[in-house]
Amino acid sequence: MPSAELTPAYAAVTRRGPALENAHLAHVAVVDAHGTLHFRFGEASRPTLPRSAIKPAQALAVLESGAFEQYPFSEADLALCCASHSSEAIHIARAQAMLEASGASENEMRCGPHAPLSEAVQREWIKSGFTPTPVCSNCSGKHAGMLAAARALKLPVGDYHAPEHPLQRRVATTVADLCDLAPDQIAWGIDGCNLPTPSFALDRLARVYAKLGAATLPDDNPHAQALKNMAPTRRAGLARIYRAMAAHPELVGGKGRFCSELMRAYEGTLVGKVGADGSYAIAYPARGLGIALKVEDGNSTIAFALAVEVLQQLDLGSPAMRARLAHWHRPAIKNSAGVVTGEIEPVLRLIPVAIGRHPDR
Amino acid sequence: MPSAELTPAYAAVTRRGPALENAHLAHVAVVDAHGTLHFRFGEASRPTLPRSAIKPAQALAVLESGAFEQYPFSEADLALCCASHSSEAIHIARAQAMLEASGASENEMRCGPHAPLSEAVQREWIKSGFTPTPVCSNCSGKHAGMLAAARALKLPVGDYHAPEHPLQRRVATTVADLCDLAPDQIAWGIDGCNLPTPSFALDRLARVYAKLGAATLPDDNPHAQALKNMAPTRRAGLARIYRAMAAHPELVGGKGRFCSELMRAYEGTLVGKVGADGSYAIAYPARGLGIALKVEDGNSTIAFALAVEVLQQLDLGSPAMRARLAHWHRPAIKNSAGVVTGEIEPVLRLIPVAIGRHPDR
Repeated sequence: MPSAELTPAYAAVTRRGPALENAHLAHVAVVDAHGTLHFRFGEASRPTLPRSAIKPAQALAVLESGAFEQYPFSEADLALCCASHSSEAIHIARAQAMLEASGASENEMRCGPHAPLSEAVQREWIKSGFTPTPVCSNCSGKHAGMLAAARALKLPVGDYHAPEHPLQRRVATTVADLCDLAPDQIAWGIDGCNLPTPSFALDRLARVYAKLGAATLPDDNPHAQALKNMAPTRRAGLARIYRAMAAHPELVGGKGRFCSELMRAYEGTLVGKVGADGSYAIAYPARGLGIALKVEDGNSTIAFALAVEVLQQLDLGSPAMRARLAHWHRPAIKNSAGVVTGEIEPVLRLIPVAIGRHPDR
Repeated sequence: MPSAELTPAYAAVTRRGPALENAHLAHVAVVDAHGTLHFRFGEASRPTLPRSAIKPAQALAVLESGAFEQYPFSEADLALCCASHSSEAIHIARAQAMLEASGASENEMRCGPHAPLSEAVQREWIKSGFTPTPVCSNCSGKHAGMLAAARALKLPVGDYHAPEHPLQRRVATTVADLCDLAPDQIAWGIDGCNLPTPSFALDRLARVYAKLGAATLPDDNPHAQALKNMAPTRRAGLARIYRAMAAHPELVGGKGRFCSELMRAYEGTLVGKVGADGSYAIAYPARGLGIALKVEDGNSTIAFALAVEVLQQLDLGSPAMRARLAHWHRPAIKNSAGVVTGEIEPVLRLIPVAIGRHPDR
């Protein structure tokens, strides 16, 4: 049994009346685009599957295939490439339009259908007897983008999702580059949507997001320094992805979803993206920061609460912006009779990391 | 950051391909009816809200009100008092019949309705436009029992759920007695179904279940020794609750639910009961043991995997019995295309506790 001083430092707790119900471990890394760690909690380098939080990097590989020049895609389509959408009508229609734009068809998609992330959509589907198809997958934008990329690169499309397919080799290289890792420093599993999904140290995910934000800054902004050796087309691609996500929060998530509400509350000054099993990443360009967090047990409700807590502790955005997210920050737990029986409380304290060069604080 | 030797000992992990996805802390206590700890993992005395896992103790208070003598209730009704049922037609019909049997009505129930624990039932309800009412609550058996108990005791029924109501004071005393705790050693919150819900050390929950099982043993069985000072009516009540649950696994849970499948697999040689937020308790009378576990982060899927793992490590039941629970023990994780992408693996090792008197091993 761990003695008192060995008790792990929990990141969040759930209380019920006077009693502790649950406690959650989590890891947080806050870095700049150089990858320098500014703040941490838990193990900043925990090997982590960012899952859908890595979609912006996968979208970059799609952009760099030339698909967005070759086919009549819009910035909204680019946002959908980065989405874990709620399978609302607007999401499905856009994914279908993306398939048509590149001459792909739904039966080429290698993601399967699933129950939607939105309970309201699920009710509609059940009520109307609708059986979802692959284009309804929350990842359908990513898959439509991948299909277009395979076509743009004149690659076979039949197994575009396979780890050994040249497209996925390109994606793997892009992800590794953005992480400043060698490809063999990344482990790959298979995602819920059937595409390869990487695992690497959490602070590298923060670095990817720091770059995503920094790419939107003018060349002479000190926070953009880390990108000075990045190919201009790549930098432009990252900036385009950031702007597409920030401009279309409703496409990246959906009605009442955390990512959408977070980006709306912050009015374009950040982009945030969930990954399944309790990962979350944020780009905050005005301070040159990327934030990544992972809840050890995979609980996404806790990840959202911690994301807002981290923004608050870093004093990012205004109190008014964060106030719009209060119901994500400290969710009240109500019972079947409508009585508030407890709440989720973030208890982590970010730890500043002593560093030599520290331009911003 | 905890150094390697301080890393908490996880109880279960989720893997995705070559990568660790999630890790879960948990606490386990295995005790006899004296309360002597035989095996543990984590912190056996973690203050824990057993939630619905304490229903057998609440049912004992209902039995001791005389309600089961005064009204035409059956053993199946007693099982429903202990249930977290799936809101299937058989559950709702029985809860309705219980209300009628004691002359109560649904509008006296103080639990609210909620989405059913069964996804199949949820689909049916949405399809048919059914709006659930309190009698559909997974706790409706407990509430029907409480209403009958209040009537049997000639108490006002209007606020039977309130912590200060004489019925709930009786329940609190019964729970404390079974735990061998003073009433003020138990903290009370409000449950999802609006009844008071206790918090006490996890090994006390194991003790309650050890007693529940031991009550079914003959007087001269060594495992029954701990009950020799228990009032015969109480002992008979506990035995009756054990037998009702073991005889009606379909009422305690529902189709495809862990409690039901566990009790069926073990053919009456144990009873097991889930509590919300990752608690689980088992009575195993043939070895005189009670088992209680709590997943620190509240994950119930992990609790089920650990319950089977603990049974295996204690060598309770036969390998054939446990084989029927393989899909709960090490659940495969499949993606939307039907590909197995990972699995949940219990990794805890129960720690034997050195004790003086140890009659059974």
